[in-house]
Amino acid sequence: MPEHGRRKICAVVASRANYARIKTVLQAVREHPELELQVVAGASLVLERFGNAVDVMELDGFTPDATIRFIIEGETPATMAKSTGLGLLELPTVFELLKPDVVITVADRFETIATAIAAAYMNIPVAHTQGGEVSGSIDESVRHAVTKLAHVHFPATELAARRVIAMGEDPETVFNVGCPSIDLVARADLGLRADVLAQFGGTGSPIDPEQPFVLVMQHPVTTEYGQGLEQIEETLEAVASIGLQALVFWPNVDAGSDQVAKGIRRFRELGRAHGFHFFRNLPPEVFVRLMAHTACMVGNSSAALREGAFLGTPAVTIGTRQRNRERATNVVDAGHDRAEIAAAIRAQIAHGAYPSAHLFGDGSAGSKVAEILAEFEPRIQKTLHLELGVEASGSARR
Amino acid sequence: MPEHGRRKICAVVASRANYARIKTVLQAVREHPELELQVVAGASLVLERFGNAVDVMELDGFTPDATIRFIIEGETPATMAKSTGLGLLELPTVFELLKPDVVITVADRFETIATAIAAAYMNIPVAHTQGGEVSGSIDESVRHAVTKLAHVHFPATELAARRVIAMGEDPETVFNVGCPSIDLVARADLGLRADVLAQFGGTGSPIDPEQPFVLVMQHPVTTEYGQGLEQIEETLEAVASIGLQALVFWPNVDAGSDQVAKGIRRFRELGRAHGFHFFRNLPPEVFVRLMAHTACMVGNSSAALREGAFLGTPAVTIGTRQRNRERATNVVDAGHDRAEIAAAIRAQIAHGAYPSAHLFGDGSAGSKVAEILAEFEPRIQKTLHLELGVEASGSARR
Amino acid sequence: MPEHGRRKICAVVASRANYARIKTVLQAVREHPELELQVVAGASLVLERFGNAVDVMELDGFTPDATIRFIIEGETPATMAKSTGLGLLELPTVFELLKPDVVITVADRFETIATAIAAAYMNIPVAHTQGGEVSGSIDESVRHAVTKLAHVHFPATELAARRVIAMGEDPETVFNVGCPSIDLVARADLGLRADVLAQFGGTGSPIDPEQPFVLVMQHPVTTEYGQGLEQIEETLEAVASIGLQALVFWPNVDAGSDQVAKGIRRFRELGRAHGFHFFRNLPPEVFVRLMAHTACMVGNSSAALREGAFLGTPAVTIGTRQRNRERATNVVDAGHDRAEIAAAIRAQIAHGAYPSAHLFGDGSAGSKVAEILAEFEPRIQKTLHLELGVEASGSARR
Amino acid sequence: MPEHGRRKICAVVASRANYARIKTVLQAVREHPELELQVVAGASLVLERFGNAVDVMELDGFTPDATIRFIIEGETPATMAKSTGLGLLELPTVFELLKPDVVITVADRFETIATAIAAAYMNIPVAHTQGGEVSGSIDESVRHAVTKLAHVHFPATELAARRVIAMGEDPETVFNVGCPSIDLVARADLGLRADVLAQFGGTGSPIDPEQPFVLVMQHPVTTEYGQGLEQIEETLEAVASIGLQALVFWPNVDAGSDQVAKGIRRFRELGRAHGFHFFRNLPPEVFVRLMAHTACMVGNSSAALREGAFLGTPAVTIGTRQRNRERATNVVDAGHDRAEIAAAIRAQIAHGAYPSAHLFGDGSAGSKVAEILAEFEPRIQKTLHLELGVEASGSARR
Repeated sequence: MPEHGRRKICAVVASRANYARIKTVLQAVREHPELELQVVAGASLVLERFGNAVDVMELDGFTPDATIRFIIEGETPATMAKSTGLGLLELPTVFELLKPDVVITVADRFETIATAIAAAYMNIPVAHTQGGEVSGSIDESVRHAVTKLAHVHFPATELAARRVIAMGEDPETVFNVGCPSIDLVARADLGLRADVLAQFGGTGSPIDPEQPFVLVMQHPVTTEYGQGLEQIEETLEAVASIGLQALVFWPNVDAGSDQVAKGIRRFRELGRAHGFHFFRNLPPEVFVRLMAHTACMVGNSSAALREGAFLGTPAVTIGTRQRNRERATNVVDAGHDRAEIAAAIRAQIAHGAYPSAHLFGDGSAGSKVAEILAEFEPRIQKTLHLELGVEASGSARR
Repeated sequence: MPEHGRRKICAVVASRANYARIKTVLQAVREHPELELQVVAGASLVLERFGNAVDVMELDGFTPDATIRFIIEGETPATMAKSTGLGLLELPTVFELLKPDVVITVADRFETIATAIAAAYMNIPVAHTQGGEVSGSIDESVRHAVTKLAHVHFPATELAARRVIAMGEDPETVFNVGCPSIDLVARADLGLRADVLAQFGGTGSPIDPEQPFVLVMQHPVTTEYGQGLEQIEETLEAVASIGLQALVFWPNVDAGSDQVAKGIRRFRELGRAHGFHFFRNLPPEVFVRLMAHTACMVGNSSAALREGAFLGTPAVTIGTRQRNRERATNVVDAGHDRAEIAAAIRAQIAHGAYPSAHLFGDGSAGSKVAEILAEFEPRIQKTLHLELGVEASGSARR
Repeated sequence: MPEHGRRKICAVVASRANYARIKTVLQAVREHPELELQVVAGASLVLERFGNAVDVMELDGFTPDATIRFIIEGETPATMAKSTGLGLLELPTVFELLKPDVVITVADRFETIATAIAAAYMNIPVAHTQGGEVSGSIDESVRHAVTKLAHVHFPATELAARRVIAMGEDPETVFNVGCPSIDLVARADLGLRADVLAQFGGTGSPIDPEQPFVLVMQHPVTTEYGQGLEQIEETLEAVASIGLQALVFWPNVDAGSDQVAKGIRRFRELGRAHGFHFFRNLPPEVFVRLMAHTACMVGNSSAALREGAFLGTPAVTIGTRQRNRERATNVVDAGHDRAEIAAAIRAQIAHGAYPSAHLFGDGSAGSKVAEILAEFEPRIQKTLHLELGVEASGSARR
Repeated sequence: MPEHGRRKICAVVASRANYARIKTVLQAVREHPELELQVVAGASLVLERFGNAVDVMELDGFTPDATIRFIIEGETPATMAKSTGLGLLELPTVFELLKPDVVITVADRFETIATAIAAAYMNIPVAHTQGGEVSGSIDESVRHAVTKLAHVHFPATELAARRVIAMGEDPETVFNVGCPSIDLVARADLGLRADVLAQFGGTGSPIDPEQPFVLVMQHPVTTEYGQGLEQIEETLEAVASIGLQALVFWPNVDAGSDQVAKGIRRFRELGRAHGFHFFRNLPPEVFVRLMAHTACMVGNSSAALREGAFLGTPAVTIGTRQRNRERATNVVDAGHDRAEIAAAIRAQIAHGAYPSAHLFGDGSAGSKVAEILAEFEPRIQKTLHLELGVEASGSARR
């Protein structure tokens, strides 16, 4: 850390979801007198096919200090690994140029681990958000691996913080600040007028957000690669059977997203998407408004569990992608079966909104992170903090 | 895992040290009737500058199924990160070709994490050796990150196994088998004739291994990048002051190894390397014999703590690279100070050989690993196994 | 070249256009008793976003021996250069595996030069098709650079062959065989029934190919990067003003294709694409039938000049991309101006079909290429063949 | 080109040889009031193993604006292709950052073509030196391919300029300025004192440059990959048989250089290198002094033909690497045969110095290049300039 001047805090923002989960940190860092913000835009954040979410970020005043493109198109398991590799070829160049004092990496994606590895090998302290959560997909493994590479941790819940510490991180480096995404929700104007979507384009049937609508966001599950097309079909058929308007988001860039996208396109080409509107990206605040008003959120996005808990959004979470993730009462599970999904959606619509739950924080995460980054003195050489009790010892097998 | 045919076990061997630590596993897998061995040779293992250790491996009958070159020359922190990235571009191609059922990754290097990430994203179960140990350098972080990506764990000590479990790995997937490197030591012919080194070349003064000699192996510490030249100078000056013959190994390929190598070259060009002989690589069995006979091993190689424990090798371990690593009584520590190092060497020479300690296993690791790999049914979707007690909870800070 | 066994001829097919221009060579090589065909599928050929043309190739019986993905998404000038680089990281691995005796590279794209460089550095003879033609865009430079790297040349016209020789290639290595794409045209069933398009999907208004329709294919011009959106808008507005049905193809993967695609999407989202149908890819034989029946082909595809010459397709070629390319009478030029384009389209529709011109060959290119590849003895070490006359000498300036 | 401000001229310097051939251009650009110099250091120029020639460049006051590392270690044909690819991943990042108006690329190496492709795809005009020369090795193909990608040409001889034009380059873009390396020679202090080498280290026997000595520089020939070890052995044995002191340079980083280096190491380890001194790099001015005083220069470096012509250095050029290259009377050829080489060396020693020949220029190349770069208006869209006469037409076959 520099003894003079402001600390340079470099956030690598690599997807629309990343941005929603780190935006208030960027704001708080930018406003902090002892910090200097650097933003690196990369991966799907800067791609047309994923809605070019960087435009939204720039409208918020965050002009990237560097833009890097490291998505190798194809969305197979191999290209996901290779895109991680290409990120690792690009990020060190950026870090050599920007010379950050701390690098922030968000959540559990391949961009996240590429960022963590690049910074860690370059002796730049790594700050990690959303550590200690549990889920399905490869995200589960990657999230915890990033924890082991990070020097300071900003888990989003008390339970997640305890997990990070239990995995051997120094408790002095673990700060339960809540999730920055909740800051957005807490501050957002949740009003929803009929014209709110007009400026954002998209394709398909027009949507009147003042009438009941379903919100669909379903990503591939990498550990179930090859099943994505079938999985999205079940979901779309279930949604179609409900008869409400539907807002459908294209999937993010993981192994299998081509298959999910193909399922959506095929559904549309078969003329089954009556009353469906398709978006690639929306500003996070607009998305939050939709979550606040949707009759039911459907799919496997963690937003249903995270922002949804705060908003009380009725949600149906499908499959294994969010398995084991901490949640409030607003979520019910369903398998990849159209009848089961449809029944769950109907039940949630009948139930209506849930009470707000604050397990992912109270809306002050961004400023807490900035405050800690201004004061914390990271040690580059990590040390494992485990106190091994007797019972742990007994369970090692031969 | 295939229901028919033999399981394909693919080991990625990426350095001379890797090879010594996995050789008996390769042998046992090759001989196991239900397993088929695949060997990928890469990184410094296939480079002249690092002694082309692949030649030794091939002499042992392990012809690589694939050879990949992913060292971006330069050995800076940035190139170490980038070489990880290049490995991640190369390894998926190999895995797509070889279609392994399990990938074995060794220890804690950048090749190790590149291998683990590539396989994990491709839904190939990852087997990891040497997890749960602690040390300094970036290896410390990388080792634990690989644990979080791996599906089956072969830690080398009881304590390491307990750490792997404590970090949240399913105890059913953790097997303390001891270190395969000890298998080699236990089986080796430890006799040392004057001509044993003749065939392996090297440069500098000839060495008579029947006379007392010091063994020097010092690698850069990535988290202390920029200090390597000075650090090796202190060591070489200390060794020179002892007055014995010295066998010096060139460093491995990490950030800073160029600086260590430069220090060695400069020492030699200054005419200070009287009685010093320099090697790039030796077959592991020959190296073990040298460890069995050296008056003192000096530097920061983990071999001094690992194979050295079994052999009772008097050793001086310098600096932070092996800090906190489990050890027997044969090792004493020293800082990067020529006087302190020289005093420690003299004391160790005066002490002579230590009793054999079996904390890294008893010589049966290879066959145990093969046996487990033949039977174990890994689950691709990992799940965190943590039972959070009350005291863990209390330590999360706000 | 091997003294025993069949020569291995490896074609790298990297886009739908590539495939149409090399398909009959693949067929002829496969059928030749002294040759063994290897096919590498890569780049946009294997991407959903570009119609996954590899599926068409596989239906034709060409299962790829290797599939490589090296498109770095973004389609900026920088990513086009970087995708070339990623191709150069992937192709050597494939060539080491397949050990071809000759590599075939097609035309003038970044995949083409990546293939040529990889093979040439690996001492594998390079066969190049479509050398000696002239055009605009970066293709112009790349095409001639590939000529200088290639060991055997299959230009498609007499004039092109003369240019290749004039540039210093050994006349013994230059074979004017005509263009393999013409083979397809000459053999194709050119009948067009109303249902021919039904199975190929696409989006937008249904098309009745038995009624008059315009065929639109417009790619970005890399040397005019930044103008693509505006350029396609002029074209689409002109086409819309004609009032016929229109079949529009998405652009290929060059710097700026995102902008062209955005222009198409925006046109569609504005509701201006009445009577327009959009395709990502069609089998080459189906595309040829459309060219045989279209009222007018519009855009800047070389197909208008090449297959179009043989078919007598009335065509309007816009902008500089095909500037200077050899052509028959079927093509008229227009600038990027909607009025000028519309006028030219109307004139071409009024004119109707042109007589067939054979300047790109007579339909026997594929078998000629195979025959030559079976007999030719390439020399790896190239030598410049220039005879410098007096007048050439005079023109060098100081 | 910018209408305001100074033109930014970016030279990519990627090896010690590159630097010697472009240094006076860098000086002249730096001093020109209308130009701004940017220097990118990369590849072997920044590697310890190749003498870290960037240090010499920095001592001359050229601090790199960017340093990129893209040598994938291994020096096989595949890694040479892959290093080209890695260069193509790194260079666009640098060009996006530096925003040059012109990029200078030197001669005929893989770094040269990577630079040319990156700049050309990014619509940055490419200036190329040493085009139009002929030689052996893959350099021959690469040199002419770069010519086809370049927008302005600075060939070093009148004949080379005529060749560049004959290959179809616009004569308005071709400037025979002579070779910048001759500028250095013409300006150099050619005195040689006994202590001139003292400060540059190296290994092996000390050399007294006031006594007769042989200068050996032999690189691998990529098109004869696999023969490098044998080839260098013949050369070293021949030199040893002469009985004079020998100054031997390690080879540059091409496919096969590991083999040449291994041959040198083996020769040394066998104790055959009596009176030999080994250098990785020397400042170009010092190297020129050695060339001015050597009894005979031996190997296959183009310096023997280029700087050697001006200096009248007696030289023996071995094998095919310089085949067909323009030359003065100072060079005699020999095959890879120790007796033939030794006889040629003896004859050259007996002959002594040759008269100075100015075919590679008169020492004013650097300033001419700078002057032209300040005034020239390149067109990004290249156009082939060929006037095809009747005889050219006749030679196309089939």
